[in-house]
Amino acid sequence: MDSKIIVSGMRPTGKIHLGNFFGALNNWLNLQNTHNCYFFVADLHALTTASDATENLTQNTLDMVVTWLASGLNPEKCTIFVQSHVPEVSELNTLLAMITPLGWLLRNPTYKEQLVEIFKKKYAGRLGDDKTAAEKLSMLTEKELSEIASFGFLGYPVLMATDILIHKATYVPVGQDQSAHLEITREIARRFNEQFNTDVLVEPKALFTKVPKVTGLDGRKMSKSYGNTIEVGEDIEVLRKKVMSMFTDPNKKRAADPANPEGCTVFTFHKLYNPGFEKRCQECRTGALGCVACKKELFEYMRPSFEDFNAKKQELLKNKTYLDKILKEGAEKARASAAKTLAEVKKAIRIY
Amino acid sequence: MDSKIIVSGMRPTGKIHLGNFFGALNNWLNLQNTHNCYFFVADLHALTTASDATENLTQNTLDMVVTWLASGLNPEKCTIFVQSHVPEVSELNTLLAMITPLGWLLRNPTYKEQLVEIFKKKYAGRLGDDKTAAEKLSMLTEKELSEIASFGFLGYPVLMATDILIHKATYVPVGQDQSAHLEITREIARRFNEQFNTDVLVEPKALFTKVPKVTGLDGRKMSKSYGNTIEVGEDIEVLRKKVMSMFTDPNKKRAADPANPEGCTVFTFHKLYNPGFEKRCQECRTGALGCVACKKELFEYMRPSFEDFNAKKQELLKNKTYLDKILKEGAEKARASAAKTLAEVKKAIRIY
Repeated sequence: MDSKIIVSGMRPTGKIHLGNFFGALNNWLNLQNTHNCYFFVADLHALTTASDATENLTQNTLDMVVTWLASGLNPEKCTIFVQSHVPEVSELNTLLAMITPLGWLLRNPTYKEQLVEIFKKKYAGRLGDDKTAAEKLSMLTEKELSEIASFGFLGYPVLMATDILIHKATYVPVGQDQSAHLEITREIARRFNEQFNTDVLVEPKALFTKVPKVTGLDGRKMSKSYGNTIEVGEDIEVLRKKVMSMFTDPNKKRAADPANPEGCTVFTFHKLYNPGFEKRCQECRTGALGCVACKKELFEYMRPSFEDFNAKKQELLKNKTYLDKILKEGAEKARASAAKTLAEVKKAIRIY
Repeated sequence: MDSKIIVSGMRPTGKIHLGNFFGALNNWLNLQNTHNCYFFVADLHALTTASDATENLTQNTLDMVVTWLASGLNPEKCTIFVQSHVPEVSELNTLLAMITPLGWLLRNPTYKEQLVEIFKKKYAGRLGDDKTAAEKLSMLTEKELSEIASFGFLGYPVLMATDILIHKATYVPVGQDQSAHLEITREIARRFNEQFNTDVLVEPKALFTKVPKVTGLDGRKMSKSYGNTIEVGEDIEVLRKKVMSMFTDPNKKRAADPANPEGCTVFTFHKLYNPGFEKRCQECRTGALGCVACKKELFEYMRPSFEDFNAKKQELLKNKTYLDKILKEGAEKARASAAKTLAEVKKAIRIY
């Protein structure tokens, strides 16, 4: 195994769908075989935007770990832990807050965009869709702003930097749109090292992983808010119905009409699950197969991984002792790595 | 001993002078006999404004504890610890950040005033003295602001609230001008309890302690920046010279002239150290004693407590093992109290 270190986390926001799976977890499954990986449930991050809705935090945290394990993440190959189980994270977070200029955070464009997102959920309809995030923000009163943004929300790039720097990550898997976040992490590491004349913190590099296109049932981006998702661990009969309801090429009126697989939702899934994908494209273009048969076949290709996942999940849910053991051992491994960096950081600052 | 809990801290900013002593430490000496006290060296707080000047942080932390012990703080009566030795503080700080509205911190008047103070030190002369803090702030460019204010600096009221709430303090000793800080602590406690429908956090009350007037050698407020201080633990010969240089009533030209003790610097110290203070006022008013003799007597009244302090300090400095033992035991006691509150807080939030 490569000694290079990877750190990545997911917020425990309930179930994850196939968009999330292929966007991140599927890559983790490969990375655990080739790198020294730290994967964590970002429960503290969840509090930056949803501290007022924690009823399900416990269950969501546990569900997230079950999803990872049932998908094939292997605690013997990688370190799996819950962020809040590593107190060193909060310690380093508090220290890095002291050297992070406020301006970096206030100017962070994601901060402003997310503020608007949170606001839209709370006061739907108040803000028009024809305005930029900055314009929308300026429409909010100070009271409204102070209601929706917590101090911790402004500071989530610091917490993210902490998660990464505390394990001296070599790489962080990111989507193209997340590279700005990583830039703040790199800047914080650089500033700390310069200020304390040290090389304790390691600037991580972005690992741009391949993310296949995953559309929703209706062909738009798969998203909870569109109601077009397939959950990882979807019930088999629900999966069947969802596959049968997928949007297809509207030009194909009859089963024997030739059609265009590009732009057909069914085909984005064939590409993910059907090893004979190219042949199926051909059949579609020539009109050799109707959409109903095509969907039925897709379902049969998808079914085994869902059945496998669901069986593993049921097994895991019955064995909470095992889950707790995994998380305890994961936290211990993560704490050992974190404590080492933290001690070096404290020494560099000259904390007694 | 009263079971009521007191929490108070001091930043490790090198030596403390008599103004600091009578403003805080002298009260601690009384409170340790009557309350369950947690006194801490606020090394994390020191980083909120001076993360770029930590060369002496280790020594200042140790010096602060030595000063406390040599002054009479008794580790068998109270809990003495270093803030950063209690990781639970950083954990709670990170959690409370999530529920503290950003607006509360940005509107905090002390935040703006302190920003100007920091800025003045760095760019002396750039800002006129005839402007309000807000006006001065508006003269700073965004880049300058982002240079001088760290994220942790904006968040120091959250950290302060954490220090207090983590031990469920009943009272916090405060000067009149600090009651606004305590108000944010109370608001954070209230918000947390309301949000999570709990009573885990206790709103502390202000304990307005008596603070005698301590002027500097020149009659102005005693302050490092005026160069008019007497240090706790001043060398005896330096003390003698400083006492002899104190400003007196300018109307008393000769030793036998009657004078006015009010407004005479020497008398503010007689009031603190001379049990026969009233008699001495009388003698001054009738001209029975000249200023030189009066100062010599004051010196003799002050000398014993300085000699006592210096002897104890020398003893302590020789015994680092003892100091480390005090701080280790203090941290253990503080951690036990802090861990209890932290566990309750995590449960209330429903962290797994």
